[in-house]
Amino acid sequence: MPTKVSSSVSALALSLSLTMPALANEGQWLPMQMPQLADDLKQAGIRLPAEQLADLNQYPMNAVVGLGYCTASFVSPKGLVVTNHHCAYRGIQFNSNEEHNYLDDGFLATSMEQEPSAGPQERLYVTDKIEDVTDKVYAGTTDEMDGYQRYHTIQGNRKALLKECESNDNYRCHVRSFHGGKKYYLLRQLMIRDVRLVYAPPQSVGSYGDDIDNFEYPRHSGDFTFLRAYVAPDGSPAAYSEQNVPYQPKSFLKINASGVREGDGVLVAGYPGRTSRHKLLSELEFASDWQYPVAAKRYQHHIDLIDQHGMEDGVIKIAYAGTKASLANRMKKLNGLLDGFRKTDIPAIKGASEQAFIDWLKADTKHAKQLAKVEELEQKLAKQREYKQRAFYFENAQSSAMLSTANRLYKLANERQKPDAEREEGYQERDMKMLQGRLNRLSRSYDSRMDRALWQTDINAYLDQPLRSEALDKVLTTLDLDSAYANTELHDGAKRLEWMTQPVEAFKASEDPFIQMAVALYEANEANRRESQTLAGEITAARPAMMDALLAWYDSRNQPVYPDANGTLRISYGMVDGYQSADALYKQPFTKLEGIVEKHTGIYPFNAPEKVVDAIKAKRYGSFAQESLKAQNPAWHCSIFSCTEPRDAHFGSVPVNFLSSVDTTGGNSGSPILNGDGDLVGLNFDSTYESITKDWYFNPEITRAVHVDFRYVLWMMEQVDNADNLLNELTLLK
Amino acid sequence: MPTKVSSSVSALALSLSLTMPALANEGQWLPMQMPQLADDLKQAGIRLPAEQLADLNQYPMNAVVGLGYCTASFVSPKGLVVTNHHCAYRGIQFNSNEEHNYLDDGFLATSMEQEPSAGPQERLYVTDKIEDVTDKVYAGTTDEMDGYQRYHTIQGNRKALLKECESNDNYRCHVRSFHGGKKYYLLRQLMIRDVRLVYAPPQSVGSYGDDIDNFEYPRHSGDFTFLRAYVAPDGSPAAYSEQNVPYQPKSFLKINASGVREGDGVLVAGYPGRTSRHKLLSELEFASDWQYPVAAKRYQHHIDLIDQHGMEDGVIKIAYAGTKASLANRMKKLNGLLDGFRKTDIPAIKGASEQAFIDWLKADTKHAKQLAKVEELEQKLAKQREYKQRAFYFENAQSSAMLSTANRLYKLANERQKPDAEREEGYQERDMKMLQGRLNRLSRSYDSRMDRALWQTDINAYLDQPLRSEALDKVLTTLDLDSAYANTELHDGAKRLEWMTQPVEAFKASEDPFIQMAVALYEANEANRRESQTLAGEITAARPAMMDALLAWYDSRNQPVYPDANGTLRISYGMVDGYQSADALYKQPFTKLEGIVEKHTGIYPFNAPEKVVDAIKAKRYGSFAQESLKAQNPAWHCSIFSCTEPRDAHFGSVPVNFLSSVDTTGGNSGSPILNGDGDLVGLNFDSTYESITKDWYFNPEITRAVHVDFRYVLWMMEQVDNADNLLNELTLLK
Repeated sequence: MPTKVSSSVSALALSLSLTMPALANEGQWLPMQMPQLADDLKQAGIRLPAEQLADLNQYPMNAVVGLGYCTASFVSPKGLVVTNHHCAYRGIQFNSNEEHNYLDDGFLATSMEQEPSAGPQERLYVTDKIEDVTDKVYAGTTDEMDGYQRYHTIQGNRKALLKECESNDNYRCHVRSFHGGKKYYLLRQLMIRDVRLVYAPPQSVGSYGDDIDNFEYPRHSGDFTFLRAYVAPDGSPAAYSEQNVPYQPKSFLKINASGVREGDGVLVAGYPGRTSRHKLLSELEFASDWQYPVAAKRYQHHIDLIDQHGMEDGVIKIAYAGTKASLANRMKKLNGLLDGFRKTDIPAIKGASEQAFIDWLKADTKHAKQLAKVEELEQKLAKQREYKQRAFYFENAQSSAMLSTANRLYKLANERQKPDAEREEGYQERDMKMLQGRLNRLSRSYDSRMDRALWQTDINAYLDQPLRSEALDKVLTTLDLDSAYANTELHDGAKRLEWMTQPVEAFKASEDPFIQMAVALYEANEANRRESQTLAGEITAARPAMMDALLAWYDSRNQPVYPDANGTLRISYGMVDGYQSADALYKQPFTKLEGIVEKHTGIYPFNAPEKVVDAIKAKRYGSFAQESLKAQNPAWHCSIFSCTEPRDAHFGSVPVNFLSSVDTTGGNSGSPILNGDGDLVGLNFDSTYESITKDWYFNPEITRAVHVDFRYVLWMMEQVDNADNLLNELTLLK
Repeated sequence: MPTKVSSSVSALALSLSLTMPALANEGQWLPMQMPQLADDLKQAGIRLPAEQLADLNQYPMNAVVGLGYCTASFVSPKGLVVTNHHCAYRGIQFNSNEEHNYLDDGFLATSMEQEPSAGPQERLYVTDKIEDVTDKVYAGTTDEMDGYQRYHTIQGNRKALLKECESNDNYRCHVRSFHGGKKYYLLRQLMIRDVRLVYAPPQSVGSYGDDIDNFEYPRHSGDFTFLRAYVAPDGSPAAYSEQNVPYQPKSFLKINASGVREGDGVLVAGYPGRTSRHKLLSELEFASDWQYPVAAKRYQHHIDLIDQHGMEDGVIKIAYAGTKASLANRMKKLNGLLDGFRKTDIPAIKGASEQAFIDWLKADTKHAKQLAKVEELEQKLAKQREYKQRAFYFENAQSSAMLSTANRLYKLANERQKPDAEREEGYQERDMKMLQGRLNRLSRSYDSRMDRALWQTDINAYLDQPLRSEALDKVLTTLDLDSAYANTELHDGAKRLEWMTQPVEAFKASEDPFIQMAVALYEANEANRRESQTLAGEITAARPAMMDALLAWYDSRNQPVYPDANGTLRISYGMVDGYQSADALYKQPFTKLEGIVEKHTGIYPFNAPEKVVDAIKAKRYGSFAQESLKAQNPAWHCSIFSCTEPRDAHFGSVPVNFLSSVDTTGGNSGSPILNGDGDLVGLNFDSTYESITKDWYFNPEITRAVHVDFRYVLWMMEQVDNADNLLNELTLLK
């Protein structure tokens, strides 16, 4: 297995020599690229041999696991796993009820018998096979095919590969594209299905500061939770059963209870989701100049409308609280992107680099074909941009929850006429349970007055611009909003479910105004989908050739390159470091216990538990304090009333969160942060506001990831929760 | 004159030896206390002799002038004065109209002929006499008097002293209480009445960040404006006239164009308004535990109501915009106080100090009388607290603009029955113009629906608590709000003015519902005023004795003490220094030009002028850059796209604002910041959010004042506005 892993991927890792200044901190590297970075790793203070890091069957990489949307790691030989509180949230919620609210109060099993199932949906994924399937994915594609055929040929091949791989129920598989389709890899993951809850702090620790502190720093979040993997007595994955036994991982992470200091090198291993660092300047500019501002304007408009209606009507306020929170979160991310693009001229940086690449292509006639491919891709992207602008308004003009429900139900009626395997994703039999759930839940977050007001702004935005659809124009011209909302049955959850099994004819005969609209818009919506897939297919034909040229250019400069994030296992290394957040505003790399009390108002989300506040006020630092967290200025201060010794003059304190320059993105939540020896010292859980643009450009001056310091986890165990059983199960180094 | 000043005040300054740790930075000292602080000043890097600082007739103190509500200083032999933009705002506004908007565009006179009057209301005050009038103020008071008699005896004496002092129109005089009435001083100020506008930056420089950045740091405000003092050709003060000539000040400040660096000692000289550092713990606790939270709750309630009504009605939104801004500003200050009391346990610090004082009194029977006086003061303060709680609800329950107008008009009718000299302040003939203006302007910020809604919440708050007034209860029981607002004439400005001359009988006969309420409440309101003045009179009898004891205690500890701020000239010294704003958040002492561009969005209040942004982007630093403002981290940074040199690798930058630990409060706006040699290096203009509690307790770790760096002023002149005439008029040292 280890041989297989390294041999099959090594082709992807380009040769490296260190003539270029080190790309300090940037890079979500494939583990197998590590040996080529060996000198750089050493210089960064990583003492673990690069070859060891590259080997997925050795410590520490074989202790790293996926949760599907997050990362976790084994920390004991008995399948104990640690990840973020927000990654284990569902499992804690699953065990909370009116009798015991583990979200509010936290949970600690003092013996294995007390560990409840985290729920039938929870999974742990251990990657055990990586295989190059590029040829299989492209099988049957030809240069003559149009984009739509190409798209569906590739999708068909991927579906077939997954079906074969997942024929054994114990595995989940993925086919991932690397470098824009230059390579495809099939990843096979052992799927552990019996996951149990072991130790979770209260929400007021696990998400202290919650949405207010999201993307912010200084941060004081105890974003950790312990789970345990269980398997059948024979060692194979199995659903929850009392007979199951703890899983024995191939290895588990040792914990260094002395932690790290400012300037120390650190590693992060995990499953980052998606970045766009190798996209073209034209794609970056479309995002920064059009997609982000237009989306931000729309979200803000919706938030304002919800606020206004919510102020007048408590029912609306409650129904749309979740929608608003989600919009506000997206707004914060968009604002971070827009602020970031304003403060750092990323297009100029990216443009200079891209120009050098194009100049290199033009300088040698042997690159003529590649240059043509780049130009071909640009043309296709331009076509796609025109489509995306049109689709944005076209799709938003159908944003009413009633209309989108009607659209989905009518699409289902049409898809149900085909054999199951030929239906589109989302409309197959295996999707029906989720669709039912969605249709059922809709009423909880719906109010016809609010839905109508939001939809009206989207209709207005559509009508205010020139990229129109004849079919949609026709529907909107005859639309009577009063009557539509008054006469639809789709407000009623039971009726919505009934429509799931109605034939196409029933829709055509229906007098429900929203069903009628869905029927009238069906062909336009289908054409929109076909156009989207055709363009995607055309781009998959052009982008791999561009990436070939780009990688050849980097290679000519002896510059190592990592593929954009795609949900596969990566390693990044960096340094524990603060940053200059703004002119005259410096953020120091460690926060400490006292900062929790400083923020504590007693009001959510700054309502630290009493036992935490008391322990801090009593300076019960226990075994895990760090001497160097003393105040900067060691002078005594006197006022007319008193002389006070400097803050923390005689004591260090316990670090709570820390910053490093490792390169992460969504999906890295819960990832282990390792010191230079590969010992666990923290858990990744967020990035700073200034780092939001890193999906496009890693600015090494200001890009910082935020980690839970593992000493805070140990302090909670020792000083607050008396979790001696767990402290004993862990392997602590000093 | 200088002899007079120093001899008359020296009695106030207590003896000082430096056995106590230095009270670094704390202290709004009387200039004449400087010689006693000589060693400490030297240690703080102040090279100017302490004796020179003490002399109001020598450089630099004779260059410092008052504006009434702000401080300013002479900076040329031709009467050129510099202060804050926000202090000169009224004069800039006075000269702005539809043709030339100097607020938006800024103003520069390139010759004296172009300097317009800043308006007939503008004044410059040069303190020229300070006289101990304690005996005269207390003349006629006896131990037998009740508080009410005592209050009015003291007020009568003060009025008489002022009248005599102001018999010459060229002077304005004040009688100020020091150490809670232990001493009274008469201050005589030469009043320059021809003040002209010389140079003001646009608002987008002068108040860059405006309300959003108010009390905040990092800050980038060019809060400066130049004025010029003019006098009659014979040198005496005179109203504006073309014949007038520039005033020749006794001295003017030299400017050090090299500025200061982190760690340098600095001085501030100015007119701080009011602090409460010598008040008792019981007074502090009443403020922090009752007055501030109760006021904050009321303001927030009012802000929410205005938001809610404003969202539904644009007319209300506009009418109450000013009210809301003012409430929001007060809320920010109150929140700063409440946050500050939460983060630093000021009552505990103050309590420990007060306990030591009481213990000292108790330890020696010779202090028995003083101890009794302290206890007497505590009893009177307790009585006053009870009154203040009652008065808070009683007065707020009459908060309707209609009712308070009716109250004021009816009080005027009653006062007009007395000879002018015997009337209460605010109801004398000299007050009538201001009252007229107020009655006229009311309509602009009034809407009956909003007034009613705000009043209703104040009525509810009154009715929800037990401290009631029979008369007010009676009025409220029979109150019909619909009918009151429908039937009052007081909505009409002309009618309000008519009522100014109506006799008491006309009020009694009126059927206007608000006039009727005013008549019904008159006796209760008068009783409330009498009670307030009686309590104030009782406290003036007890507090000086307590202060005697307190000062004796400080003296026994060889601890120098400054009197609480009272609008008189003070000196404070400190250090250019950043501070730890929160856990892991350090604010550095200097901001620089690049920070302006960083904040610049083009949208008010972050809309820096194009010429400023262009000069910064072009790195046109001119003669006033500081080398040491380079980035902290001198390493090159590389991303996959490019390697960038560290920010400001080869250039320093021009400092914009800076922090120091000098001790300031409201009234210090515009105060000159001097380096150790007494050269001008900046203008004080604000304090940080964490400093708001300093009116009660100066926390040396976090209390910082915010100054305009004078190099930014010079940079604006040289690189942006080509103000060569002014640059030449100033005396610049390098």
